[in-house]
Amino acid sequence: MTSLLIAGGQVLRSDMTVSQADILIDQDSGLIKKIGSDLTAENTLQAANSLVTPGFVNGHSHVPMVLLRGCADDKPLDRWLEEDIWPAESTMTADDVHTGAKLGLLEMIKSGTTGFADMYFHVPEIVAAVDQAGVRALLGHGVVTTGKDADKSLADVEKSLEFAQEYDGAADGRISTAFMPHSLVTVGSEYLEEFVPRVREAGIPIHYHANETLNEVTPIVNDHGIRPLDYAADHGMLEPQDFVAHGVHVDEHEMTLLAEAGTSVIHCPASNMKLASGMAPIQRLMDAGVTVGLGTDGAASNNDLSLLDEGRDAAMLGKIAANDASAVPAETVVQMMTQGSASALGFHSGVIEEGEPADLAVIDLEKPHLTPRNDLVSHLAYSAAGSDVKHTICDGQILMRDREVLTFEEESIVKQAQQTASSLVSRVSG
Amino acid sequence: MTSLLIAGGQVLRSDMTVSQADILIDQDSGLIKKIGSDLTAENTLQAANSLVTPGFVNGHSHVPMVLLRGCADDKPLDRWLEEDIWPAESTMTADDVHTGAKLGLLEMIKSGTTGFADMYFHVPEIVAAVDQAGVRALLGHGVVTTGKDADKSLADVEKSLEFAQEYDGAADGRISTAFMPHSLVTVGSEYLEEFVPRVREAGIPIHYHANETLNEVTPIVNDHGIRPLDYAADHGMLEPQDFVAHGVHVDEHEMTLLAEAGTSVIHCPASNMKLASGMAPIQRLMDAGVTVGLGTDGAASNNDLSLLDEGRDAAMLGKIAANDASAVPAETVVQMMTQGSASALGFHSGVIEEGEPADLAVIDLEKPHLTPRNDLVSHLAYSAAGSDVKHTICDGQILMRDREVLTFEEESIVKQAQQTASSLVSRVSG
Ligand SMILES: [Zn+2]
Ligand SMILES: [Zn+2]
Repeated sequence: MTSLLIAGGQVLRSDMTVSQADILIDQDSGLIKKIGSDLTAENTLQAANSLVTPGFVNGHSHVPMVLLRGCADDKPLDRWLEEDIWPAESTMTADDVHTGAKLGLLEMIKSGTTGFADMYFHVPEIVAAVDQAGVRALLGHGVVTTGKDADKSLADVEKSLEFAQEYDGAADGRISTAFMPHSLVTVGSEYLEEFVPRVREAGIPIHYHANETLNEVTPIVNDHGIRPLDYAADHGMLEPQDFVAHGVHVDEHEMTLLAEAGTSVIHCPASNMKLASGMAPIQRLMDAGVTVGLGTDGAASNNDLSLLDEGRDAAMLGKIAANDASAVPAETVVQMMTQGSASALGFHSGVIEEGEPADLAVIDLEKPHLTPRNDLVSHLAYSAAGSDVKHTICDGQILMRDREVLTFEEESIVKQAQQTASSLVSRVSG
Repeated sequence: MTSLLIAGGQVLRSDMTVSQADILIDQDSGLIKKIGSDLTAENTLQAANSLVTPGFVNGHSHVPMVLLRGCADDKPLDRWLEEDIWPAESTMTADDVHTGAKLGLLEMIKSGTTGFADMYFHVPEIVAAVDQAGVRALLGHGVVTTGKDADKSLADVEKSLEFAQEYDGAADGRISTAFMPHSLVTVGSEYLEEFVPRVREAGIPIHYHANETLNEVTPIVNDHGIRPLDYAADHGMLEPQDFVAHGVHVDEHEMTLLAEAGTSVIHCPASNMKLASGMAPIQRLMDAGVTVGLGTDGAASNNDLSLLDEGRDAAMLGKIAANDASAVPAETVVQMMTQGSASALGFHSGVIEEGEPADLAVIDLEKPHLTPRNDLVSHLAYSAAGSDVKHTICDGQILMRDREVLTFEEESIVKQAQQTASSLVSRVSG
């Protein structure tokens, strides 16, 4: 076998303990073969004075939106979508999406993310970018039917199912797929009634925005007399393989419903704060037994794709939401950004154990802001930043070594993305 | 004159516009001499593809607490102080404080901070570290009298006044001072009654924690029948040169009181979230006319000293607190971390204009997470991180060039801080 050694790092194990160890990787299978001391391999990555963590998993994103970073700040969700985001997206070509995906993937690899879930359009372009990048992804075509005629709506829903069927297992198995209605209020119930049974029959998971703002809750309560997640369950969209983004405005009954269904929630604290959507009751969701992962949402409402920023935000907002400084502690945050997201997305990554995928981030600890090393789990949750990530490994392959991304040409992608964004802005305003 | 040119950067001016310009600095006076094009000087710092901003001003901190980073997370303020922080601090020597101050200053320079206010003990050691670091500082000895006998209390208060008188103007004028009672509930009113008149007579500003948690509000309301800031005003501690940290639990009347008095508030969003202290009504404070600056508080409740992290937190928390995505927008955040804090502390820095102090941070924009450059003020508020700072300049002198700090030996300080922290932890637990 071709082998890779991650040598001499402080290794974060699945029980959240940290101790020094070598990690031997079988690069053919992409799996961790052995964790121990004095191991040898053909290739070696030095991890002395570094923390080796599971690669971070971004559980909910719209990666090509990095092109719109900083375009429309300080607005609530509905105005932000209608006045800025949708008009810009309506002019986006397949090439634009490909460029945006490459820029976003570059940013994610540089901040230690090795897997993500994404909802967007022109998704085959995202598949191509993920194939080149070397990360793991769960992708889907986002469906919106409100404001569209029946033909276009039907075509859009059909496209989401077709994409999920066609691309599952792409990029040597690193890509999985889901059916992705945008939300319970932006896709007509007639389409859900027609398609969800077909999706279930094909064994495909479903991912959608749920209970993000009160504007997504009130119409369902008014029109149907039930809570949004009851409506989701009635439509067959609350299964163990499904996962919803946000879950900000959920009541006790819906928390129980999620826990009993085994449906996961992806928490997006930065987006929820920036759009003033509200505070998700994360500690209560976890106490109820719901699996919670962490996501950045799109970069236009964040404004970055670093899971380390997001983890810090989750700890901070979780305490304010619970009015309790012991809520959403450091260990919980680290679990959310690794095991939590991975479990929600059906990835086997998220832990460093023998036989598991070698999806890893190596964090340089020789920094003033990571000194002293009183508690490395605390540093990961509260003090580390994306730029502290030194090496990124996914599926046993080195994606970034000493801050140099090996699967992309950073300089040319940054340049191309700047040109695409300029053209996009002039198309929208012009 | 010895001159320095910051060449070819995108310059953020005091009106929050950004345009390309050279900045000519008179290094003898430490002032900006000219902002224009095609300027020349003896020394040059390249700022192409970079954003030149005023150096950030950290309006409230306890810098040596970096030694306790990660030592006691996920606890509320009172338990955190009594169970962890105070026991650790009680064993801290003058040497420990000196080491902690150097580590914290290193972290601040590396994240573009050129000025700060600090409340701690063994403050002459912090003076020495600031003198070497080259930044601007407003320093004070923090007084606590609760739990101390009268002699010790008196000595502590006396020390705060003496320090303020002795060290004002130190480090070639880069150091100013304040009288610093820890808070309105941890210093007995008899000491305030005796000392504030002497402080006022000496023309010294006063800085203290105010209305941080309800535990700081309720006892004053119960014992004196008035709000804490009325109590402060009654004790002569609400003057234009004074500034308070936090202001989380302030009512409408207290907002008006602050605005009319001209007393500034330093907002510490990360600390307020991490200790679950509450959400300061920052947009309402600013609407009332209060000057608001930004501070990190100590690294044990943050857990870093980057003002860029703090700015992002301020925007995020400000929107949730106001339930309004347009509250505390990007421009406001950038103003808080520059002009707002500088004005609160009585510094003339915080703006890039001719005749003003050359206190600057140069931010490298050639990063995936700062691409595309749709809006550089947005990037500063939401996307930039401490590690994006390339050069730091204070008082016309280069403190960091191309990420290398020139006034400190980074490696030896990091090593020494690690040793000191290990010894501290073993002293406390042993
Ligand atoms: Zn989303
Ligand atoms: Zn403080």
